[in-house]
Amino acid sequence: MTKKIILDCDPGHDDAVAILLAVGNPNIDLLGVTTVGGNQSLDKVTYNARAVLEKAHATDVPVHAGCDRPLVRKQEVAASIHGETGLDGVELPEPTRPLDPGHAVNWIIDTIMNNEPGTITLVPTGPLTNIAMAARLEPRIVDRVKEVVLMGGGYHVGNWTAVAEFNIKVDPEAAHIVFEEDWPVTMVGLDLTHQALCTPAVQKRIEGVGTDLAMFVSGLMDFFRKTYQDNQDFIDPPVHDPCTVAYLIDPSVVTTRRCPVHVELRGEYTLAMTVADLRGPEPAAEECHTQVAVKLDFDRFWDLVTEAIRTIG
Amino acid sequence: MTKKIILDCDPGHDDAVAILLAVGNPNIDLLGVTTVGGNQSLDKVTYNARAVLEKAHATDVPVHAGCDRPLVRKQEVAASIHGETGLDGVELPEPTRPLDPGHAVNWIIDTIMNNEPGTITLVPTGPLTNIAMAARLEPRIVDRVKEVVLMGGGYHVGNWTAVAEFNIKVDPEAAHIVFEEDWPVTMVGLDLTHQALCTPAVQKRIEGVGTDLAMFVSGLMDFFRKTYQDNQDFIDPPVHDPCTVAYLIDPSVVTTRRCPVHVELRGEYTLAMTVADLRGPEPAAEECHTQVAVKLDFDRFWDLVTEAIRTIG
Amino acid sequence: MTKKIILDCDPGHDDAVAILLAVGNPNIDLLGVTTVGGNQSLDKVTYNARAVLEKAHATDVPVHAGCDRPLVRKQEVAASIHGETGLDGVELPEPTRPLDPGHAVNWIIDTIMNNEPGTITLVPTGPLTNIAMAARLEPRIVDRVKEVVLMGGGYHVGNWTAVAEFNIKVDPEAAHIVFEEDWPVTMVGLDLTHQALCTPAVQKRIEGVGTDLAMFVSGLMDFFRKTYQDNQDFIDPPVHDPCTVAYLIDPSVVTTRRCPVHVELRGEYTLAMTVADLRGPEPAAEECHTQVAVKLDFDRFWDLVTEAIRTIG
Amino acid sequence: MTKKIILDCDPGHDDAVAILLAVGNPNIDLLGVTTVGGNQSLDKVTYNARAVLEKAHATDVPVHAGCDRPLVRKQEVAASIHGETGLDGVELPEPTRPLDPGHAVNWIIDTIMNNEPGTITLVPTGPLTNIAMAARLEPRIVDRVKEVVLMGGGYHVGNWTAVAEFNIKVDPEAAHIVFEEDWPVTMVGLDLTHQALCTPAVQKRIEGVGTDLAMFVSGLMDFFRKTYQDNQDFIDPPVHDPCTVAYLIDPSVVTTRRCPVHVELRGEYTLAMTVADLRGPEPAAEECHTQVAVKLDFDRFWDLVTEAIRTIG
Repeated sequence: MTKKIILDCDPGHDDAVAILLAVGNPNIDLLGVTTVGGNQSLDKVTYNARAVLEKAHATDVPVHAGCDRPLVRKQEVAASIHGETGLDGVELPEPTRPLDPGHAVNWIIDTIMNNEPGTITLVPTGPLTNIAMAARLEPRIVDRVKEVVLMGGGYHVGNWTAVAEFNIKVDPEAAHIVFEEDWPVTMVGLDLTHQALCTPAVQKRIEGVGTDLAMFVSGLMDFFRKTYQDNQDFIDPPVHDPCTVAYLIDPSVVTTRRCPVHVELRGEYTLAMTVADLRGPEPAAEECHTQVAVKLDFDRFWDLVTEAIRTIG
Repeated sequence: MTKKIILDCDPGHDDAVAILLAVGNPNIDLLGVTTVGGNQSLDKVTYNARAVLEKAHATDVPVHAGCDRPLVRKQEVAASIHGETGLDGVELPEPTRPLDPGHAVNWIIDTIMNNEPGTITLVPTGPLTNIAMAARLEPRIVDRVKEVVLMGGGYHVGNWTAVAEFNIKVDPEAAHIVFEEDWPVTMVGLDLTHQALCTPAVQKRIEGVGTDLAMFVSGLMDFFRKTYQDNQDFIDPPVHDPCTVAYLIDPSVVTTRRCPVHVELRGEYTLAMTVADLRGPEPAAEECHTQVAVKLDFDRFWDLVTEAIRTIG
Repeated sequence: MTKKIILDCDPGHDDAVAILLAVGNPNIDLLGVTTVGGNQSLDKVTYNARAVLEKAHATDVPVHAGCDRPLVRKQEVAASIHGETGLDGVELPEPTRPLDPGHAVNWIIDTIMNNEPGTITLVPTGPLTNIAMAARLEPRIVDRVKEVVLMGGGYHVGNWTAVAEFNIKVDPEAAHIVFEEDWPVTMVGLDLTHQALCTPAVQKRIEGVGTDLAMFVSGLMDFFRKTYQDNQDFIDPPVHDPCTVAYLIDPSVVTTRRCPVHVELRGEYTLAMTVADLRGPEPAAEECHTQVAVKLDFDRFWDLVTEAIRTIG
Repeated sequence: MTKKIILDCDPGHDDAVAILLAVGNPNIDLLGVTTVGGNQSLDKVTYNARAVLEKAHATDVPVHAGCDRPLVRKQEVAASIHGETGLDGVELPEPTRPLDPGHAVNWIIDTIMNNEPGTITLVPTGPLTNIAMAARLEPRIVDRVKEVVLMGGGYHVGNWTAVAEFNIKVDPEAAHIVFEEDWPVTMVGLDLTHQALCTPAVQKRIEGVGTDLAMFVSGLMDFFRKTYQDNQDFIDPPVHDPCTVAYLIDPSVVTTRRCPVHVELRGEYTLAMTVADLRGPEPAAEECHTQVAVKLDFDRFWDLVTEAIRTIG
């Protein structure tokens, strides 16, 4: 059975791969893409989302632009990782489908309220501003959503600070709202996504698909590798965002561990840390609505990505 | 010239008087009332707003319900002051006008965007959740609004804690957003509103209007006096919210002082304090977009309120 | 009956006047002066304390040097107010009495433990580091001290920030310890000391004493006036520290108000604020161990200072 | 060459083993034991320290009592782990050596200042109150101390909260002082000490020494196992404190990793976390004065402990 998802993102090199995986995998029904200021400004990431969908021949997928800045804090972008356009390193096609009218937050609410309860999965891969705003503007969505599978945070790993990840760090109050609302939340954090490295072997496999799209992805990876080498002491870039979609396609690709998770809003050194309590035995799902991603099936993950690129053609 | 205002409130005994002043004064064009969870739950304060408008024969004024809880924190109501219904102590008429459809936040945005720039004044007299949400959902409203005149805070006086006022305390992040956005903000705080006491002499004057509405207001004041005596060590109740409307009708009723104001979001003893920097000379309006209300013209204020009650009939 | 006091200070122009008042008034038995890094570095303020005592012919008064930095935070000095030496603007005599051996904190503890319980008053007029350290190193002093009368803080007034005073701001954790320990604390804060202005008329009276010491004090005031004009928008300088000693000589010089006071340790805008809860009726002394100074008898205060200068000769 | 150490502790079952390891190993010159309120009240842990030294025939080792409470926070003890006496589960001998006079903080300062620079290692295994107080009372000790090897904290593991360890949690400000001072600090935290499990096989080996002291240690372990099973979901108890001494005896027993470490003083969920920045390559010793313990040589560790018990006889 296909899973209906809303992908709320800020492309971003790895967001682009998440879009492709969602478009190219038959088990995912991508209802729409919504955008949020994050890796770059809202205008840029919205354009990028539309261009990536164009590249993927997915002009039937609507794109709605959302919040351009965090709930409470000043905006911060990740130009050091994604460049000035947010998708530096490749040439983007001109989107043929116009930007859809209406605010992403309202579109998210309407889509959830107009679908059957328990059918929509939210997949945020950027700052959680849109999702938090939607939950505050229409609290009933919390019960209607099937689950939230988000890329962000980390229980033992940080990137933007020693212990905080970019998506959470730029809008910690929004993250707090999303983690505290009583819907099932799967945190696909850096602990997991730092396993999703695009090694040269992986990249060669992708290139092996032989399409223009495959070379586009390879170009994204070249740029991403370079900035990760220069700014984060990585050899190969971790391709964070598609891990969320992979988990939805096949939960066995990502091992999870149930535990309470709270977002630190006050700390000096720990601001925006996703504090997971891993002490003691794993709680039951009824007691604990949050879980964290722990272990990636590396081969299966890249199989899914490569296959999606091939499927799109 | 009349002033177009949106009254965003949570009635509440003093909110009710603010509504009456806005309805009854010819210089105010009340475009609509929006409601927010605050003194009581959203359902209750929304009903109260509609009932008070009914009582004031103002069934042409739309009412839109807004956010039912704060942005980031858990909800807290002021039942000790306003009772279980939020307007305890009087009998409310059944509203004949149905609740208007659409969320208050969207209605506020649409109203501002559909009016000429610089024509709409926002008058929040409850927690600032709706206003903050609107500014985040549609940042362009900040430049289009004429000014924000809010009841909340205090530079030297607190009520909900030693240094924090209820409206700010229950949603400090929303207050932070409103104070930090670059629109003109007048804070009508407890320093001012604790001067707006409904003394027995004032109440007698209101009763002297001789209408059913005058007796309704007097009934509100009886209950309000009692809870203020029991919970806040006051002899007469301070009627906070209409001070904002009075200032808009006639700025000379309220002396103001320009100064930077920031909302404390982290303090242990000072959470939600509106920190005003009153050191040194008063800054110019171009340097400082916030001002605080300092001194009330008591007689003129109650003249306005009494006159509005008389005008409504 | 004379009052035995330990003056813990960081001279500082107004500390110097406090020393002179303590030396020159027959009702004060100045057991010793202890010094703490504050207005300037420990070395400088210790030298200043010795030099001022030399100037006052009080070479029988021991001086012990204490902590050179705050408990938890980085050091900050007030060179903008007191100059590079901490007593800029006058010529200091060479102290003939050597610095007394032993750390101020140990000397404070020993002095309290070796005197009868309830006989020693602590008079801190700088950061509260020494006093806090003493209370932690020997908790029994808390019960043995008669009372603490300190210059610092303010319930409605700040100088180093909008709401924080210098002595508290530079070591808020020490201040927290002193305010939370269960000894009687009188906070002589800026609300009071900003009334203790050295007007030209006051300064003329002091000069009228006609001694070398009087001209020395006048020289201090000239410099102090200048820095207060340049940095704090004052016309005449507030002579904070001797207000504590004046209160001990004659409590009627300073009207006080009993209320809970807590030091804010977390706030962004309110760090180090002395948060006084002035709501409701004044609590009884048994319920509340803290009080704040409210109103100065200006004439009587300056009488005491002038008289002390005259007495010293 | 032997290492001169001061063991600053709060016995405590694992502190007791640390004392025995320090007494029984020929490479350690235990200059003295100082005590601090922690696992239990100061009186209890001081008695325990003296009794354990008595048990170890080490009546030549002086014991000085230190601070009975944290610098800034309210006291909290670990009765759930160490019982009402702090050493529940065994019978303690009556100490024959009287408690040494003088405060631990002053004795620590004097010992450091009276020994050659660079010869004394501080080994705190309780809250860091005494060490922090000494560094503030006599800042020159920081340059004179050889190094600080402390048990406390954890970079990925907490016990008293999800991310904080008991010793740091009960006095985070003291820990902050110790980590921020510019002396070499080795943090032997829970990441390491949770590897130092006293398994039944280990305990059997200890019992195999066959002395009264060996049975005493085994009795300690029985109680410790029980409370760790009941309160912390462990099967075998982690014997934290002697890991510090073992590292000093033989650094190869404990693998370390140099990285910046800061103590979080503000966080809601992360208060007292020891935040280690493990991103990027390991810094050089000249750039970074802190390191964390990562990997224990389990067999070698228990060899050292068993051998020390045998040596004491």
